[in-house]
Amino acid sequence: MTERRLTCKACDGRWPPQDHRIADLGLTVAYLFEDQFFPGWTVLVLKRHARELYELTREERSHVIEEVNTVAQVLAEEFHPVKVNYGLLGNQLPHIHWHVIPRLADDPAPLESVWGHPHQPKPLGERVRTELIAKLQASLRG
Amino acid sequence: MTERRLTCKACDGRWPPQDHRIADLGLTVAYLFEDQFFPGWTVLVLKRHARELYELTREERSHVIEEVNTVAQVLAEEFHPVKVNYGLLGNQLPHIHWHVIPRLADDPAPLESVWGHPHQPKPLGERVRTELIAKLQASLRG
Repeated sequence: MTERRLTCKACDGRWPPQDHRIADLGLTVAYLFEDQFFPGWTVLVLKRHARELYELTREERSHVIEEVNTVAQVLAEEFHPVKVNYGLLGNQLPHIHWHVIPRLADDPAPLESVWGHPHQPKPLGERVRTELIAKLQASLRG
Repeated sequence: MTERRLTCKACDGRWPPQDHRIADLGLTVAYLFEDQFFPGWTVLVLKRHARELYELTREERSHVIEEVNTVAQVLAEEFHPVKVNYGLLGNQLPHIHWHVIPRLADDPAPLESVWGHPHQPKPLGERVRTELIAKLQASLRG
């Protein structure tokens, strides 16, 4: 049984929104991040509750980094980024979730982290979001 | 032989400064980050030149995440963080280097990423830096 925390919004399904779900990758579930100001920004949320890498087994760490890598490859095929950013922070939500962010050629702040570039969040409209998620799902299956 | 790029400052030894070196961990070398505004901030620099996780073999990814994890544990023992942050960005230097940053109870911006909190860099004096590095080295050996 997967360990869950009642007070954790990643455990109880309050975040990320289910209509942003891309795929179950094994130990994590990938979601399109709500804010698409940086196009393709994806989060991988661990299915069980853990805060730090050192709360996982060696085998889990190895699996999780493969899942992060798979998503990075799929995003690279779709978005042709100059660089991919990978971040496991958890300052606001201490439940392991990886940010995987393709940084594109027309990035407004190419030298900065996405967290160092304040901006108005940019949610996608439902149709565009659904199409992008379907593309990423197909690419993950391929 | 380790692949190196002549134009890369992580390959040719221009960064990080050698007097910030903590230890050779196998595939990466750990250095205390020059800016210690966030105490304990450490970087793990891949010994060979690669930009993205998907340029590594599966075995390399597994080894590297273990090295990141080992450093996180050592930093947690030394600094007792509320949360550890892990980031692989490379926007300014596209050579794989992991930031591992313990976020302490008295953190000035506990909900923000370190890159979302502009600040004056805080290098340590030589004696304090040397002592901290020696402590982390001892902890890594233990």
